[in-house]
Amino acid sequence: LKSIHFTAQYGAKGVWGGASTETGVCRLALSDLDKMVRDWFVSETKKLGCEIKVDAIGNIFSIYPGKNDGVPTAIGSHLDTQPTGGRYDGVYGVLAGLEVLKIFRENSFVPNYPVAVVNWTNEEGARFPKATMASSLWAENVSEESIMNLESITDQKPVTVEQELTRIGYRGEIPASYKENPLAAHFELHIEQGPILESENKKIGIVTGAQAYDWYKVTIQGNSSHTGTTPLGARSDALLAASRMITKCNEVAHKHNGLVSVGVIDIEPAVVNVIPKKVSFIYDARHASDNELSKMHADLTQEFEEIVRTSQGPLSIKPLELSIEHLFHSKAVHFDPDCISSVKDESIHLYGESNVKEIMSGAGHDSCSTSFRCPTSMIFIPSRNGISHSPEEYSTPESIDEGLSVLLGAVIRYDEL
Amino acid sequence: LKSIHFTAQYGAKGVWGGASTETGVCRLALSDLDKMVRDWFVSETKKLGCEIKVDAIGNIFSIYPGKNDGVPTAIGSHLDTQPTGGRYDGVYGVLAGLEVLKIFRENSFVPNYPVAVVNWTNEEGARFPKATMASSLWAENVSEESIMNLESITDQKPVTVEQELTRIGYRGEIPASYKENPLAAHFELHIEQGPILESENKKIGIVTGAQAYDWYKVTIQGNSSHTGTTPLGARSDALLAASRMITKCNEVAHKHNGLVSVGVIDIEPAVVNVIPKKVSFIYDARHASDNELSKMHADLTQEFEEIVRTSQGPLSIKPLELSIEHLFHSKAVHFDPDCISSVKDESIHLYGESNVKEIMSGAGHDSCSTSFRCPTSMIFIPSRNGISHSPEEYSTPESIDEGLSVLLGAVIRYDEL
Ligand SMILES: NC(=O)NCCC(=O)O
Ligand SMILES: NC(=O)NCCC(=O)O
Repeated sequence: LKSIHFTAQYGAKGVWGGASTETGVCRLALSDLDKMVRDWFVSETKKLGCEIKVDAIGNIFSIYPGKNDGVPTAIGSHLDTQPTGGRYDGVYGVLAGLEVLKIFRENSFVPNYPVAVVNWTNEEGARFPKATMASSLWAENVSEESIMNLESITDQKPVTVEQELTRIGYRGEIPASYKENPLAAHFELHIEQGPILESENKKIGIVTGAQAYDWYKVTIQGNSSHTGTTPLGARSDALLAASRMITKCNEVAHKHNGLVSVGVIDIEPAVVNVIPKKVSFIYDARHASDNELSKMHADLTQEFEEIVRTSQGPLSIKPLELSIEHLFHSKAVHFDPDCISSVKDESIHLYGESNVKEIMSGAGHDSCSTSFRCPTSMIFIPSRNGISHSPEEYSTPESIDEGLSVLLGAVIRYDEL
Repeated sequence: LKSIHFTAQYGAKGVWGGASTETGVCRLALSDLDKMVRDWFVSETKKLGCEIKVDAIGNIFSIYPGKNDGVPTAIGSHLDTQPTGGRYDGVYGVLAGLEVLKIFRENSFVPNYPVAVVNWTNEEGARFPKATMASSLWAENVSEESIMNLESITDQKPVTVEQELTRIGYRGEIPASYKENPLAAHFELHIEQGPILESENKKIGIVTGAQAYDWYKVTIQGNSSHTGTTPLGARSDALLAASRMITKCNEVAHKHNGLVSVGVIDIEPAVVNVIPKKVSFIYDARHASDNELSKMHADLTQEFEEIVRTSQGPLSIKPLELSIEHLFHSKAVHFDPDCISSVKDESIHLYGESNVKEIMSGAGHDSCSTSFRCPTSMIFIPSRNGISHSPEEYSTPESIDEGLSVLLGAVIRYDEL
């Protein structure tokens, strides 16, 4: 699958090894680099005889014709990356779809029904802070207005999704909706992004579902004053409170056997000798159970309120204030039994029972969105050291090919059902 | 002292009340606004018959002639402010000096020896992160090279002190040195910036010294990976470690009866669903005793090492790494007995024993630098609610006038010694 390293030219960044392919990629959603890789993808799939549909949120559907007309079976993932992204996350799934179409073409194979390769917009949620953004809109799990007005968090001057879609020419005509633009099924091939397959020496992960997750923005308003002249007891130090909360996130995650951590923190005024007046951070919480996930949030809210109460100095003239905003939610997902069977049968057929494993996804994926609206499942291949969202993200060429073979076979099996 | 509100035009920012004078000021060192207020100050003091000297670091000495030639007695402070600064911190001391010269002039009073009003460059250390920067250079407590090459932390593209001095035209000819450009004494009138005088209902603080303080930059290098797929035990989360350290700063401060807190934190890559790879923060530690201050640092270093050891997951492939850089140190300061006496005698003479109080300064001041090279002392007036480094900083017009009267009398008393 040479196109993985070919398309890495659109945003190569973060050298981790000596070879020219040993860098990561930074290709933020709806950036100029994203436009370049999209244009390339459209041109490649046109060459294979695909019809191209672009919807209002910039999702690209390249549809390869079948013997019969009808709703296409899709192979989808995303071409956007993290700012410190690797070469594989998302990109692999779209390019493997393209490869499947090439194999069809080279072998003059015509599927029973059309097969679409889909590039979903802003899966990462790195530039515009909602992950699986555009597949969620297609699934009508979020409102169009909330997405179009969403502002970027990686630009010095924030811009909206709508502005950037228009700027790069990918604000399409078709409504972004599973109702107006349905899919018969959705298969997604992806790197695991975690350490399980590698450590258990498995070739293929048959993904049966994905854990639930939430993003919350927490803001603490304190009082800025001089670090040298304000006694500890007279302070309302927003960063001290935030630090206690971030520490607490980890404790609560351990307690519930889930995951909670913080990746973004902002501080005002950010001066060495001034007590921070305002701190906000975003925490990411995950659990296989929807119920445990909401229990973790309830726990944290209570702990944060307690921290705010106890972090304020008794002589402080302004109390610490807490506010919590819910940014994003993804429910626990259970994939479709028929799709899972297609993947399972094909991978056992190719590599044998001992080389495959049923697995839950730790990350959210576009397949989590589609699973609410059409039969869906996913295929994982091992990630070296479990590393992802980092330039060092790596999967071997053998794994890459093995995943592709399972995808090809599973799609053909499903098409025959 | 109307000039306080007049000069606030150069950088007024941060409205806190209804009146036009109820804003703070943002006038960062060596910015365009700083140039404007400097030009105004030079022109005002020239009108009063002062000779103007500008040294290599942009310190301005406006020298009012005395009956005899000789080394001038100085009244100094600073015209730069915090990004979220008030109208009084520093500005008050320089403008009160100007007012003293005006009173001399209006009353045709000629001091025995010249009296200089000094504007010291970048006292705040907000733009270039060394507080009392230029008075420290004048005192030869720091090297010229380290200061000239110091980079700004408030600009998107960092610039050096030297570049900005040249750009605004205040890189003077005279060496920045107490040897080449000596002062006979240094008096500084300043707002307290803390709550003590107000809460004890005193008019004047006779400042006998200042506490020691240190700024340290702490950097934690972890490993970025995916928040959804990386088990807690496989993480090296730099922000979790930093949060534990910031919490520990507060504990150690309590234990030693000192002050430690963090005002600046930076995080990479700053993405919601990526474990932070690198976090750095600057902590500010203060104590009246040099010895206790270094004990606090030793304690913190040990605690930080322990936190780094225990915050790293047992299955993490990359260890957390800690580095600590010393940015700035200011020793505990004890002011000159004669200068203190001049202030004490004058303030008791004017307001009586019960309205004055001997006090230590919590903040660093240019007087801390000068005290190593010439007899020095300071005068404080109360700060409303002890607030400083905030737009809400406020002292009443009565306090402002009372401080000025003490300064005038103290300088005349010292001139007569
Ligand atoms: N696969 C992936 O990295 N998706 C981003 C959404 C998430 O944070 O899980
Ligand atoms: N007076 C004052 O705010 N000086 C700045 C240096 C310090 O942080 O103490």
